[in-house]
Amino acid sequence: MNGRLVLYMIGRVMQVESVLMLLPFITGLIYKEGDAFCFLIVAICEFLVGFLLSIKKADSNSFHAREGFVTVALSWIVMSLIGSIPFIIANEITSPVDAIFETVSGFTTTGASILTDIEAMSKCCLFWRSFANWVGGMGILVFVMSLMPLMGAQNMYMMKAESTGPSVGKLVPKVKSTAAGLYKIYCTMSFVLFLLLLIGRMDPFSALMATFATAGTGGFGILNTSCATFTTYQQVVITVFMILFGVNFSVYFLIITKKFRAAFKCEEMRWYFAIIFAAIALICFDLIASGNMIGSFGDTLNHVSFTVGSIITTTGFSTVDFNQWTEFSKNILVILMFVGACAGSTGGGLKVSRMVICIKSVSKMIGQSLHPKSVKIIRFEDKPVEHETVRSINNYILAFIGFFVISMMIISLDNYSFTTNFTAITATINNIGPGLNEVGPTGNFADFSDLSKIVMSLDMIIGRLEVYPILILLAPSTYKK
Amino acid sequence: MNGRLVLYMIGRVMQVESVLMLLPFITGLIYKEGDAFCFLIVAICEFLVGFLLSIKKADSNSFHAREGFVTVALSWIVMSLIGSIPFIIANEITSPVDAIFETVSGFTTTGASILTDIEAMSKCCLFWRSFANWVGGMGILVFVMSLMPLMGAQNMYMMKAESTGPSVGKLVPKVKSTAAGLYKIYCTMSFVLFLLLLIGRMDPFSALMATFATAGTGGFGILNTSCATFTTYQQVVITVFMILFGVNFSVYFLIITKKFRAAFKCEEMRWYFAIIFAAIALICFDLIASGNMIGSFGDTLNHVSFTVGSIITTTGFSTVDFNQWTEFSKNILVILMFVGACAGSTGGGLKVSRMVICIKSVSKMIGQSLHPKSVKIIRFEDKPVEHETVRSINNYILAFIGFFVISMMIISLDNYSFTTNFTAITATINNIGPGLNEVGPTGNFADFSDLSKIVMSLDMIIGRLEVYPILILLAPSTYKK
Repeated sequence: MNGRLVLYMIGRVMQVESVLMLLPFITGLIYKEGDAFCFLIVAICEFLVGFLLSIKKADSNSFHAREGFVTVALSWIVMSLIGSIPFIIANEITSPVDAIFETVSGFTTTGASILTDIEAMSKCCLFWRSFANWVGGMGILVFVMSLMPLMGAQNMYMMKAESTGPSVGKLVPKVKSTAAGLYKIYCTMSFVLFLLLLIGRMDPFSALMATFATAGTGGFGILNTSCATFTTYQQVVITVFMILFGVNFSVYFLIITKKFRAAFKCEEMRWYFAIIFAAIALICFDLIASGNMIGSFGDTLNHVSFTVGSIITTTGFSTVDFNQWTEFSKNILVILMFVGACAGSTGGGLKVSRMVICIKSVSKMIGQSLHPKSVKIIRFEDKPVEHETVRSINNYILAFIGFFVISMMIISLDNYSFTTNFTAITATINNIGPGLNEVGPTGNFADFSDLSKIVMSLDMIIGRLEVYPILILLAPSTYKK
Repeated sequence: MNGRLVLYMIGRVMQVESVLMLLPFITGLIYKEGDAFCFLIVAICEFLVGFLLSIKKADSNSFHAREGFVTVALSWIVMSLIGSIPFIIANEITSPVDAIFETVSGFTTTGASILTDIEAMSKCCLFWRSFANWVGGMGILVFVMSLMPLMGAQNMYMMKAESTGPSVGKLVPKVKSTAAGLYKIYCTMSFVLFLLLLIGRMDPFSALMATFATAGTGGFGILNTSCATFTTYQQVVITVFMILFGVNFSVYFLIITKKFRAAFKCEEMRWYFAIIFAAIALICFDLIASGNMIGSFGDTLNHVSFTVGSIITTTGFSTVDFNQWTEFSKNILVILMFVGACAGSTGGGLKVSRMVICIKSVSKMIGQSLHPKSVKIIRFEDKPVEHETVRSINNYILAFIGFFVISMMIISLDNYSFTTNFTAITATINNIGPGLNEVGPTGNFADFSDLSKIVMSLDMIIGRLEVYPILILLAPSTYKK
């Protein structure tokens, strides 16, 4: 393990975070809030520590997969711990564990909250919460890499550890240009969304926060009612953009390079839209059949589309209390929580591509038990999928289930109901935000014990970084010579 | 597909079932019950149909994996459908769907019941219910093969399709002698259990029924209170034997052939006992710490051991209403429901060996992402596990989850709570019996809709036959030339 180089990288990440913290500071100055200076103090201290850590470059350039995983895992943990300090010293969140939970929830784009009155918070703190969603959506190391000239091979390892989905697509030859390209698309789309919300007469601050939370598929709103009081136009705009931010960003790369046909043929995107339409249709039908329509048919369609878009992209915004829906509709939402968005998007969950490859792998198995000598190849995106990839996806899902079960065991010590525990872990490990019952859209995570909040904070990071970085950080064999 | 040969085999199975049905008939005669003749009538009709089906042997001996799977799947379905008829014509269960559910639950050794008053049933019907547990435990085709001279290769395919666990161990060279050997062990152990219960002053009929339900790990008792009114001695005897019937039967083969060292070294058995002891310790500790002790410490230990043994072996007997325990203890039980017993035992669930290999597979994956060039081999029972086996286990678990999710979606239309739906499917697909909430130890499955009961009946067969036979029966490609 090249510890020096890992520390150097973490130092750089801290420097970047400290610069980002100047934004809530400025926000606080604009709104004349005392809390602003909490951000300034933390930013200065963080910058100094980061500077000290990265003052001396490591002698050895040896940096492999394990260094990459460890760097990414530690960066996210350090970033969340330091990011929570302003909330504590501003006294906006009194308990340190709560502050950490809230910050982790922000950076991992989960959107689960321990706040019982969001609107009571100062503007600069609200800014920091929602801005964390935006930064976490595309990934902090991707951000660092898009700005700074780092070393060659290291970037690939870190990008691999931070990006989502079964395997990182080499979109353009150099990682730095990929990272910069991703952020260009991300910023452009965010800007369009912001404009559309302004046009819909949302005030600039609210529009900016909604943009951050939507683009990062985070879901940290600034109102206690999430998006329920937004106009239909605003809700529709957010629905559309939540779904767009859940699409594999390589599709947008293809569109930019005018490969429209290839973009349209993206198999994962097609499955993604098929699942969204099927879910909307089933839930609308169920709500109408069971006499639970929400206003007119148009309103119902709007709220159901919003909810489905919010859940499958793992944003976690809400316009209605879907905890009141029938069990059938709620079960569809729980399934969507696990499916998640496309690989290489800002969304969480298991990812559509993993699900599809996993289903293809099972159906191949049936074929093989019928005709043991036949050789069937799994194809995805018109390419054969390597055995190694299939195995890694299957193992990924099983490791994910392992973490799920252990987490649920620990939080069950608080003695909440099975449904609450199950969906609390579902909502945190898949980076969604709200679950069902006590953690439903009208509830929050405030009443869990500190132990449970720490477990769920870890789950959010596990979900965002897709299990392996954290597993490798914890494995003793990582540190053997 | 060699349809003639499949029909021939099913004919044989029907003949065997019709002979077995004479036992409840005799029971009915002894207790002078009119219901007895229902069994006689069905037995005669079934024998005739079975005779007609198997009167002409197929011209072709071609019988491969797919014929094996289809034969086993169809045999279980036919056996359950016909086995339910006596309940209907005796008017002990009025709804045909209920009767099918109850019979499937019997043969698959699930023990889930739609009866609200078990004690009101006639003795011959009670006999048939519990006896189905005993027959289903070891498998009807294994039974047929242990009696009849069938053809060579076919037996292997059917044994593979009916036996539980990742791969059928070739215990002794010839399948027929394996089948007969298995039944010898099974009968001997059942007889010892029966004697011990008689010594414990249980009346012969109750002792016989308890033996059937315990040996098959089925759990169809004859009292409304399951085993709550049994003496401590009787409960302890049943605890010990439930756990013994959950052990891989190859361990008993080894003991018989005096290979004690090899028997003791069985890795699956060691994990199985380790899990049992850990679960008992955790639940006892939790109940004591939360002030929920059941009588004295000795009583608590007895009831917890009984419950853990009952759940991990998927028997489903109960002495206390574990639905009243804390969430932590209930979660442990739900996990045990999925773990299940050892492969090659009469118990259900995913099986300990699958779980262990699956965990080893995930931890291997971590090692490989750290050192991509290293070659690590998974070892189980001191032998390397082939890639193919690992892949098949992973796919098995994923297919299992697929059926689980689809089933849960369908039964959620009845609008019971998430916990009820989740544990109802858990309890049926893992062949346990009771779940939590509405389907807890004091509840039953009576109030579900017919559609849900059919889905859960299918789940019970899917669980007992371990997914593939039913998947292959339903796959269109099975019937292609």
